[in-house]
Amino acid sequence: MTNQPKYNIGLVIYPGMTHLDITGPHQVFSFVREARVHMLWKNLEPVTSAEGLTILPTTTFNECPQLDVICVPGGGMGTLETMADSEMLEFLKQQSETAKYITSVCTGSLILAAAGLLKGYRAGCHWLFREYLAILDVEVGTERVVIDRNRITGGGVTAGIDFGLVVVSQLCGEDSAKRIQLMLEYNPAPPFDAGSPEKAGKVLVEQMKESAKPLLEAALAQTKATAALLVE
Amino acid sequence: MTNQPKYNIGLVIYPGMTHLDITGPHQVFSFVREARVHMLWKNLEPVTSAEGLTILPTTTFNECPQLDVICVPGGGMGTLETMADSEMLEFLKQQSETAKYITSVCTGSLILAAAGLLKGYRAGCHWLFREYLAILDVEVGTERVVIDRNRITGGGVTAGIDFGLVVVSQLCGEDSAKRIQLMLEYNPAPPFDAGSPEKAGKVLVEQMKESAKPLLEAALAQTKATAALLVE
Repeated sequence: MTNQPKYNIGLVIYPGMTHLDITGPHQVFSFVREARVHMLWKNLEPVTSAEGLTILPTTTFNECPQLDVICVPGGGMGTLETMADSEMLEFLKQQSETAKYITSVCTGSLILAAAGLLKGYRAGCHWLFREYLAILDVEVGTERVVIDRNRITGGGVTAGIDFGLVVVSQLCGEDSAKRIQLMLEYNPAPPFDAGSPEKAGKVLVEQMKESAKPLLEAALAQTKATAALLVE
Repeated sequence: MTNQPKYNIGLVIYPGMTHLDITGPHQVFSFVREARVHMLWKNLEPVTSAEGLTILPTTTFNECPQLDVICVPGGGMGTLETMADSEMLEFLKQQSETAKYITSVCTGSLILAAAGLLKGYRAGCHWLFREYLAILDVEVGTERVVIDRNRITGGGVTAGIDFGLVVVSQLCGEDSAKRIQLMLEYNPAPPFDAGSPEKAGKVLVEQMKESAKPLLEAALAQTKATAALLVE
């Protein structure tokens, strides 16, 4: 790492995020030799994820350099609150004016959409929340990683690793991405085949929708409120 | 989470670890409803990974309850230093007397071996470090997740997600593991096929060994020193 990195990669964090949405990409990006990776928040106070993992930011919104890549993670209630966080949305808009890639993982795309950054774009989202992204006038892609011009958006949680490698290949070329894949021994072998709603089957999907009901109702309410603001 | 969780799962952290080795399993375990997940260190001061991610521990070694699962992540130079950290090794030995599962991800198995906890067992390791595990008199397994009685050890870095699901299936049953896999949308789609030395090919593997040479030399020295102590 030099004082003047070739790339500044900014990962936004916030209370209540799903941490693997951003720790996965962070691990991938940390092996890009020419990059400095920033963990961004409003201040340098610790930020606790929905799962209780507490991370220290490295850089504040105010002190953040112009980013080449900006990435927003998803989560549950914390994500819904962040969809209405004007300071966050303003920061995302401002950085997106010059960033080479504007990106998200999981329900992070709901936050990008709330900032008006996915209007007229295709984007991905956690399978349980795709319909809310559609309400925000975004064309929903169901691929693991959705690329539409300079928007690169991953599916749910673990998609952040595939996403990270895709971003590296776009930014630095395929050789860099393959080197990092080998370093991370990313040769996945899930012990079960239940990683998508199609594969998991109706029973498991319905159980999950039922147990997530309060969150999904809150998501619908927040999405409608955000959609109304975006139309204004 | 209740005051008396059914399971206490302890993830050890230390300076210079590879963070995804432990943030991956942490994300998986955080969805086990009956579990409390501890981030364990000697004190509650922030711990910074090799990649510059700073995490706050939740529980000290001294205050740690009897664990059902103990897990040790790997890393580079930080892992080699930890192989010689008597306070860490003592803690691992003590918890392992009663833990149901004694586990690691990546080069974390070198630390378990240094604590004498893999003697007579098969275990996995990051592909680049397998030969060092063998020097410590451990039978090396090349599967993504190696199970030998109550030792469950994952391969390099990203194997921690597969590993986490395997541990959950052993601890709570397959249905719990499948539910978590769906929640995490763990339906991997690596953009390249370079995630193992066999798939990546000789050129990439040799490049990586060359660039890791100082680390590999240090690993050999530390492993030999540890092996000598284990024989005594």
